[in-house]
Amino acid sequence: MNIRLYNARILTMRSGENIFRGEIWIKNDHIAYIGTDEDIADAGPAIPYITWDHQIDCGDDLLMPGFKNAHTHSGMTFLRSYADDMPLQEWLEKKVFPYEAKLSNDDIYELTRLAVMEYLTSGITSIFDMYLTPDTIAESCRDTGMRCVLCGNVNNHTSNPEKMEEEFEKLNDFNPLISYRLGIHAEYTCDEKLIDSVNSLVHKHKAPFYCHMSETASEVESCKKRYGLTPGMMLDSKGLFEYGGGIFHGVHLTDEEIDVLDMRGVSVITNPGSNAKLASGIAPIAKLSKKGLNIAIGTDGAASNNALDMFREMYLVSVLSKLRENDPASIDAGKVLEMATVGGARAMGLDNADVLDTGKLADIILIDMHKPNMQPENNIIKNIVYSGSKCNVRMTMIGGKILYLDGKYNIGERPEIIYENCNKIAERILG
Amino acid sequence: MNIRLYNARILTMRSGENIFRGEIWIKNDHIAYIGTDEDIADAGPAIPYITWDHQIDCGDDLLMPGFKNAHTHSGMTFLRSYADDMPLQEWLEKKVFPYEAKLSNDDIYELTRLAVMEYLTSGITSIFDMYLTPDTIAESCRDTGMRCVLCGNVNNHTSNPEKMEEEFEKLNDFNPLISYRLGIHAEYTCDEKLIDSVNSLVHKHKAPFYCHMSETASEVESCKKRYGLTPGMMLDSKGLFEYGGGIFHGVHLTDEEIDVLDMRGVSVITNPGSNAKLASGIAPIAKLSKKGLNIAIGTDGAASNNALDMFREMYLVSVLSKLRENDPASIDAGKVLEMATVGGARAMGLDNADVLDTGKLADIILIDMHKPNMQPENNIIKNIVYSGSKCNVRMTMIGGKILYLDGKYNIGERPEIIYENCNKIAERILG
Repeated sequence: MNIRLYNARILTMRSGENIFRGEIWIKNDHIAYIGTDEDIADAGPAIPYITWDHQIDCGDDLLMPGFKNAHTHSGMTFLRSYADDMPLQEWLEKKVFPYEAKLSNDDIYELTRLAVMEYLTSGITSIFDMYLTPDTIAESCRDTGMRCVLCGNVNNHTSNPEKMEEEFEKLNDFNPLISYRLGIHAEYTCDEKLIDSVNSLVHKHKAPFYCHMSETASEVESCKKRYGLTPGMMLDSKGLFEYGGGIFHGVHLTDEEIDVLDMRGVSVITNPGSNAKLASGIAPIAKLSKKGLNIAIGTDGAASNNALDMFREMYLVSVLSKLRENDPASIDAGKVLEMATVGGARAMGLDNADVLDTGKLADIILIDMHKPNMQPENNIIKNIVYSGSKCNVRMTMIGGKILYLDGKYNIGERPEIIYENCNKIAERILG
Repeated sequence: MNIRLYNARILTMRSGENIFRGEIWIKNDHIAYIGTDEDIADAGPAIPYITWDHQIDCGDDLLMPGFKNAHTHSGMTFLRSYADDMPLQEWLEKKVFPYEAKLSNDDIYELTRLAVMEYLTSGITSIFDMYLTPDTIAESCRDTGMRCVLCGNVNNHTSNPEKMEEEFEKLNDFNPLISYRLGIHAEYTCDEKLIDSVNSLVHKHKAPFYCHMSETASEVESCKKRYGLTPGMMLDSKGLFEYGGGIFHGVHLTDEEIDVLDMRGVSVITNPGSNAKLASGIAPIAKLSKKGLNIAIGTDGAASNNALDMFREMYLVSVLSKLRENDPASIDAGKVLEMATVGGARAMGLDNADVLDTGKLADIILIDMHKPNMQPENNIIKNIVYSGSKCNVRMTMIGGKILYLDGKYNIGERPEIIYENCNKIAERILG
């Protein structure tokens, strides 16, 4: 398939490059060419004849890399708006775990399809998903066309290192859209023996390691009671971060932990919406950014957030940091947009989907600039981060395939069917 | 004009009433009838023959009262994304006031039209606007069809009590869409003589009084230096709140001030997005709500927010309160939706536009439930507040006139013309 996206403004997110007017040519799953309108006018006669399968007039709107949702639990869509306004532990123990236990594989397949639809409306082209049945999530993402990095979810109840190693080997070889990373749910849901087993796996495969970490103050306190160390220092003392990786949340980090994460090249994946709604706190984004750690952004699941919308998360990263530091200059829009794209790709091991460039994967979105919230155009990047919304997403393309265009989905199923099925699942499980 | 909205779910926001399936009939600018599908089936033969000008199949989507944006400066759209990430006073003095001085009446007319477009996309059916040229704003709102309450803007530089009294008399009699309330910009931009003159006007007209108040900690400190009192106590000591009114922001309120505002029936109009972005702080919404004060929500202007989106503000009211109080239960979605509708109407003196009911103004929006962010339907009100977005606004009707429907505007001008004009204004003024 050859697709030509023309009459566009282009934000490649390549370092130091400004927005320019030009075209992107896609061949199968990757970008074959990016050029300015001048490049194309100059090289016109030299351009070999190409048969286009699709040519899309972008109407002077903006092409940019898709957003990377670097932490989510897609299958939790059934719990959206079911139990809100409760503290995290009580919410998890009374309103999440008991109901999750009733989910079938088919349920998770369908609930993930609903999440994928929402991701597409928000310009999200890849997700880092940790949930109960990685096989099912992989199938759901393959079938809808979503790029998905799965995260191991070892804990005392629903997964174990043997199962994870099987998944690691199987799912890294399953489909070009799917990859798999080693991880545990969190220190507080794993006994030490389990953590040690995962540590052995990490070293056996020389693989980066991921987990929820330091989401709440009470989690940190309980770890200190168990191990005499904060979660980051405990995990590092065992060697889990030897090959890098990432931590989800990272709200309550000590300076010592930040130094260690920095030294190990561990990404911090922040989830501002979820942390705010559960009153867990605000992550020290300004400090992490100043120190040069890689920062990525995730929506977390629909049970806690409740939207799966990267525009909302980008906005929150910035304004919550300003509130936390009591400093409106603590972080700027450009940095936040980097986190949502390049930072996410780096955290998820998707180095071939970070920026728009020749040879990179064609994970591209088209942002509608012709809406009142994007006008006037004093600063397009600030418009995206501070007043942009998913209403501005005209197109979401993953691996060269257009999955969402002007409100229509191309995911192998009609929206109404997915809504109906998900409502049935919610009714059956939540009663 | 007779309009029939049928095949709908209806959330009237009348106290204690649940969502039901039914119809709304509109006659000219008001609601002539609301009934359940059963009411209509039962009364069928008795319903007099009506010639419908429009019949709209709502497709099982949700009709509800439009949002009231209870604090904004519409004309500030030219400054969107021009100067962000700066402290409030420096931002106002270096990046706002000098450029505002260059605005013509025609500029403000056009910049207000751009804001109106954005309000309509977000389901906002009335605004409480304080800006330089009330006459011009009134014309812009009349011509586009937006309901607008103008707020007096007396200060040491750009308005005065005589001008305000003229506007008060003229604009309260200008057009059914327009009304006018007495107010000053803020204590810190008015000398005492000016405040005393406005106080005389308030008593002469027995009118409610409005102003920016206690937005930043430094503003409160400077007032204490000038008067030995916090702003709320100072203004009340002079009698300004004798006929009620409202304060914009109210981030830094003492318990003593809250008691006084409560006693005087003064509304607090919160602007969470603007306060967060400028690192001004988080208003004590949980405390105000518990005490029973009327709370309304505003976007503030595009220069500071930068979006004019009530979905974002509703979400922020809830999650910022949770963070402030370190309590996920501090405020719930139902209360927030009340603030954005009924609370706003009360603060703005629009008692005939607060809920959907026979005889009330037909300020109605249609919320698209058939989008992934609104599924499943465990709790529709929570879906609106926690995962809803302006992408879910299908229709915005003001005074019985459909101004926005499925992405198309009906405001007497083509969007592209307004965008072009506003970009020219921004370029001319900001260079």
